[in-house]
Amino acid sequence: MNDFTYYNPTKIEFGKEKQNNIGKYIEQSGIKKVLLVYGGGSIKKNTLYNDIVTSLNKHNIEFIELSGVVSNPLLSKVNEGILLAKENTVEAILGVGGGSVADSAKAIAVGSKYDGDVWDFFIHKAQITEALPVFTVMTLSATASEMNGNSVVMNDETKQKYSIASVLINPVLSVVNPQLMTTVSDEYLAYSAVDIISHCIEVYFTATTHPHFNSRIVESIIKTVMETTEILLENPNDYDARAEFAWSAIQGLNGLTPAGTAGGNFPNHMIEHSLSALYNVAHGAGLAVVIPAWMKWYKEQNRAQFERFAKELFASDDAEVGIAKLEAWFAKIGAPITLKDAGIPRDGIEALAINANETATMWGMGELYSKDTIIEILEKA
Amino acid sequence: MNDFTYYNPTKIEFGKEKQNNIGKYIEQSGIKKVLLVYGGGSIKKNTLYNDIVTSLNKHNIEFIELSGVVSNPLLSKVNEGILLAKENTVEAILGVGGGSVADSAKAIAVGSKYDGDVWDFFIHKAQITEALPVFTVMTLSATASEMNGNSVVMNDETKQKYSIASVLINPVLSVVNPQLMTTVSDEYLAYSAVDIISHCIEVYFTATTHPHFNSRIVESIIKTVMETTEILLENPNDYDARAEFAWSAIQGLNGLTPAGTAGGNFPNHMIEHSLSALYNVAHGAGLAVVIPAWMKWYKEQNRAQFERFAKELFASDDAEVGIAKLEAWFAKIGAPITLKDAGIPRDGIEALAINANETATMWGMGELYSKDTIIEILEKA
Repeated sequence: MNDFTYYNPTKIEFGKEKQNNIGKYIEQSGIKKVLLVYGGGSIKKNTLYNDIVTSLNKHNIEFIELSGVVSNPLLSKVNEGILLAKENTVEAILGVGGGSVADSAKAIAVGSKYDGDVWDFFIHKAQITEALPVFTVMTLSATASEMNGNSVVMNDETKQKYSIASVLINPVLSVVNPQLMTTVSDEYLAYSAVDIISHCIEVYFTATTHPHFNSRIVESIIKTVMETTEILLENPNDYDARAEFAWSAIQGLNGLTPAGTAGGNFPNHMIEHSLSALYNVAHGAGLAVVIPAWMKWYKEQNRAQFERFAKELFASDDAEVGIAKLEAWFAKIGAPITLKDAGIPRDGIEALAINANETATMWGMGELYSKDTIIEILEKA
Repeated sequence: MNDFTYYNPTKIEFGKEKQNNIGKYIEQSGIKKVLLVYGGGSIKKNTLYNDIVTSLNKHNIEFIELSGVVSNPLLSKVNEGILLAKENTVEAILGVGGGSVADSAKAIAVGSKYDGDVWDFFIHKAQITEALPVFTVMTLSATASEMNGNSVVMNDETKQKYSIASVLINPVLSVVNPQLMTTVSDEYLAYSAVDIISHCIEVYFTATTHPHFNSRIVESIIKTVMETTEILLENPNDYDARAEFAWSAIQGLNGLTPAGTAGGNFPNHMIEHSLSALYNVAHGAGLAVVIPAWMKWYKEQNRAQFERFAKELFASDDAEVGIAKLEAWFAKIGAPITLKDAGIPRDGIEALAINANETATMWGMGELYSKDTIIEILEKA
């Protein structure tokens, strides 16, 4: 077991109607003015926007609004938020939405305390040393952004989808109310399931040290996500399934699963970021395409763990059966499993590989994942 | 799934030699003077005491010492610590030892900020609103006191073993170095294993709502503890087994396993506290006696979960087999499984039941666990 530091100071307020307390939670932190960040206005189609505004007003929290965050969130929108935050000297950022909104809120929180270009942090030209406090109210569960210090943003000029990570942008508090997720489409539910599974299996398969305990936690999360996804596709109103799905999603990327492992990395995310950057594919959809291809390509490098996976998840002793069954499950829940399914032409592979290799280089995996290697993997998709 | 708040701001520094950084960690919190709390001096038999003192000196952290904390830690010693802390106006409490030391450090941290008798908090006469920061360096893994806000202390005058709980006494930072646990005796390793398992199964069996995800996490912890205990009894120097044991112990009582459950309680701990209060039995040893008896008495109240337990842990469809196998495993690792094994005479049962019923009343379970009910359970032991 490898040495590690575990530190996750985010408070999770989980459960029904908890968005109605957001003003109280913010007030308890001594904050009086926030930037309210959200997406395309779907929060105005139900009562959520009103709930938030009512609660903020009740507790005398002043707020400025930034709407229009899109999935695969854009740097240009983040910069707009930073400008607003600075001009209005807000004291915290409140994101209401899914992972893209939370990620944007975090990037704005960092940029608001920095005189230069926030993209400096994404290209490792600057180190995060301070940030405004972040609060979130989640309407989608997948990225675990509500309980980690990660933010992924796309530079709309350079088409680079890069990330930052710091405990300084762990939300101070996140509201997770599974009721707010009832309206998520079947399509996005499936993509979310794939995303959560991907967070778990990246390190599970690539780590050179992976304790049994960590494997068990990962398998517990995946089993729960598969079970609850199937229930929710049948009945979107099953609160308990929605809740277990949401809580498992958080555990999948809040620091628990990799604690004590060594040498793990995120090749599927690395390659997928190019699919969503160049073709604006939903992140989870891109992952469903990349994962089975990557597994087929990688399996001999850690056959024992692939056999464990097949056994624990699909009651088979055969590593290949494990991969095939996961792929079949992705298809069953409606996720694309080939580039063609995702609307990406074969002659796009080279450009994807060049883009992904740039990310690989940024993540210190440039040699491991050369352009040719990425082409070899994507050919399997 | 029930509503919940999850908040655990303790930082864990896990791994080899990390005790040598304790001065740095404390300095980073802006603290300059601590009360150093430890036990019977075993930390002076190896290099640990020197490691700590060297690190504190290197970072100019002044310290006052309180030694002599015993297992089933005593209120009298806590009061001695509070006096020292107040007289010397220390800014934090540093506990170096096992769960008893950590629990004492927390009680001292609360008492140092209170003008009245610290026991007021244990008998619910006062509410915790402030406490000095707590740091720990652990030499034993079992109670998870290193990552929770619980403290159990025995009033040596009244023979009451009661507890307090507040996130204000979650350690700011805990060092968990599995190397420091290599000298734990086989006996205490076994008791620790029983204690960890008990933390997991109390809510697992008693909750009226227990999501599958939580069951899976509990089963993951128990499987890991059983596996690593057996490895360590063969080879106490197996670092990885020691590390997985230590990290599983923390997950067993840091708030993760009950999050989202409803209606769970801790009857085994409640009854056991009387065994250790009246007979000074080691906590884990007392639990090994109480648990199988309680399981036999309770099983029909939640038969489905007992069947699940048997299946997941012992590959049996029979609830009774699950109980028998757990009991046999306790015996195999050297824990007592009857009152007689633990040196408690049959005619002591009545006094135990009266004492335990007092705790039950304190915990709001006085009717559920009447004196007669407790006698009925203990008769099975």
